[in-house]
Amino acid sequence: AMDGAPPPTSPTGLSAYVAVSQLLGLTLLATTGAWLGRYRGGVAWHSPLRFNAHPLCMVLGMVFLQGDALLVYRVFRHEARRSTKALHALLHGLALVIALVGIIAVFDSHRTKGIPNMYSLHSWCGMAAFVLYLLQWLLGCGFFLFPGASFSLRGRYKPQHIFFGIALFILSITSCLLGITEMLLFKISDSYSHFVPEGILANTLGVLLVAFGLVVGYVLTREEWKRPPLAEEMALSMDFKTLTEGESPGG
Amino acid sequence: AMDGAPPPTSPTGLSAYVAVSQLLGLTLLATTGAWLGRYRGGVAWHSPLRFNAHPLCMVLGMVFLQGDALLVYRVFRHEARRSTKALHALLHGLALVIALVGIIAVFDSHRTKGIPNMYSLHSWCGMAAFVLYLLQWLLGCGFFLFPGASFSLRGRYKPQHIFFGIALFILSITSCLLGITEMLLFKISDSYSHFVPEGILANTLGVLLVAFGLVVGYVLTREEWKRPPLAEEMALSMDFKTLTEGESPGG
Repeated sequence: AMDGAPPPTSPTGLSAYVAVSQLLGLTLLATTGAWLGRYRGGVAWHSPLRFNAHPLCMVLGMVFLQGDALLVYRVFRHEARRSTKALHALLHGLALVIALVGIIAVFDSHRTKGIPNMYSLHSWCGMAAFVLYLLQWLLGCGFFLFPGASFSLRGRYKPQHIFFGIALFILSITSCLLGITEMLLFKISDSYSHFVPEGILANTLGVLLVAFGLVVGYVLTREEWKRPPLAEEMALSMDFKTLTEGESPGG
Repeated sequence: AMDGAPPPTSPTGLSAYVAVSQLLGLTLLATTGAWLGRYRGGVAWHSPLRFNAHPLCMVLGMVFLQGDALLVYRVFRHEARRSTKALHALLHGLALVIALVGIIAVFDSHRTKGIPNMYSLHSWCGMAAFVLYLLQWLLGCGFFLFPGASFSLRGRYKPQHIFFGIALFILSITSCLLGITEMLLFKISDSYSHFVPEGILANTLGVLLVAFGLVVGYVLTREEWKRPPLAEEMALSMDFKTLTEGESPGG
């Protein structure tokens, strides 16, 4: 910022919504920890407890960190775009590594116990979310971080990157809800229908996951909270608009 | 349209995406029917088969009709706004009635078999989706169909209506996936992990539900495909923008 200029302010309400999202995110982790710790013997890498690393890693990586990576353009709205972009890529990268550990945990635990892999809707949705998330990250790095892509190519890919980014975040949350349902029906199928505390706690985790997705989604899609484009980007986007409108057969 | 004027055209690509969404929607219904018909004894209102009306009604009402109701502003982009609005409300109303029949089917079937209600994450998410969908419909009618609400009030509520409309559509699809997972673990828990045809078919239904949501979501959020505002709405929205920006403390 220039000397003497007033410090840039965030739009009213944005900070409150971001604060709520972070509180929800931490509550997600605490609730997952409470479920695994209180009812499932805790989390550890040694064999009988290795499975429990799966839900914890997936909630931390595919939900909390992925969600926070989506929020950086709203939270750091007045920082240099280059550093915001780097943080966005870094958080998604960290989310991918943690999710990979979570996936290894479940495959390893299945191998030890002789349980088949990839037969359930949870595994189909979850694996699709992870593989497409990795692909999206690679495409994002290729288009936006490395200097090769032209401005017009970046401008064309950006709306797709944003749409699929939000879609993958939603699919990740959906996969977690499917995982919760599966785990409850495997572990407490006899008592789940009697409203036992473990069932209520795990259902509450599901509701919190939906709430986190709702708050993050609201912050991301609210028009007035979008990052103001820089002067040179305005000029470029005008240029790009002229270019694409010139190409469209309906124009 | 005025005589002699060329017929208005839809943007390139929109028609193709809408066609794909309708093909997916019909495939959803056929797949649900095939699952229930081939593996679950068919659908009927008499007692042992009444439960099966639940998945069929929910997929038809809460997914296919709800999705199509969201699409009417894109499909009928050059019709009078008043008739498009009426169709939007009518399709959502029809979806609500069909969903209500589906909910009665499951409560009735549970009562006959002595199964408790509302203990599972599926039931929590599904009931939340239905109740909030009904509320959203009532608010929509109150704000946009009845003549009482002022233009500025409508302009203020519209972005919330759109955000929660899409969020409820996603929550409805998520609830269907949870229902599929529950039903498979109740009915074929022993054979599901052996990749039996019923499991593959029901998982495929889940994937088709995600695909339908993805295509409808893409059509709804693509900037160039949004309905062009009418001249008087442009003027009003400018007016509204000046008004709200005048109120914001950051302005």
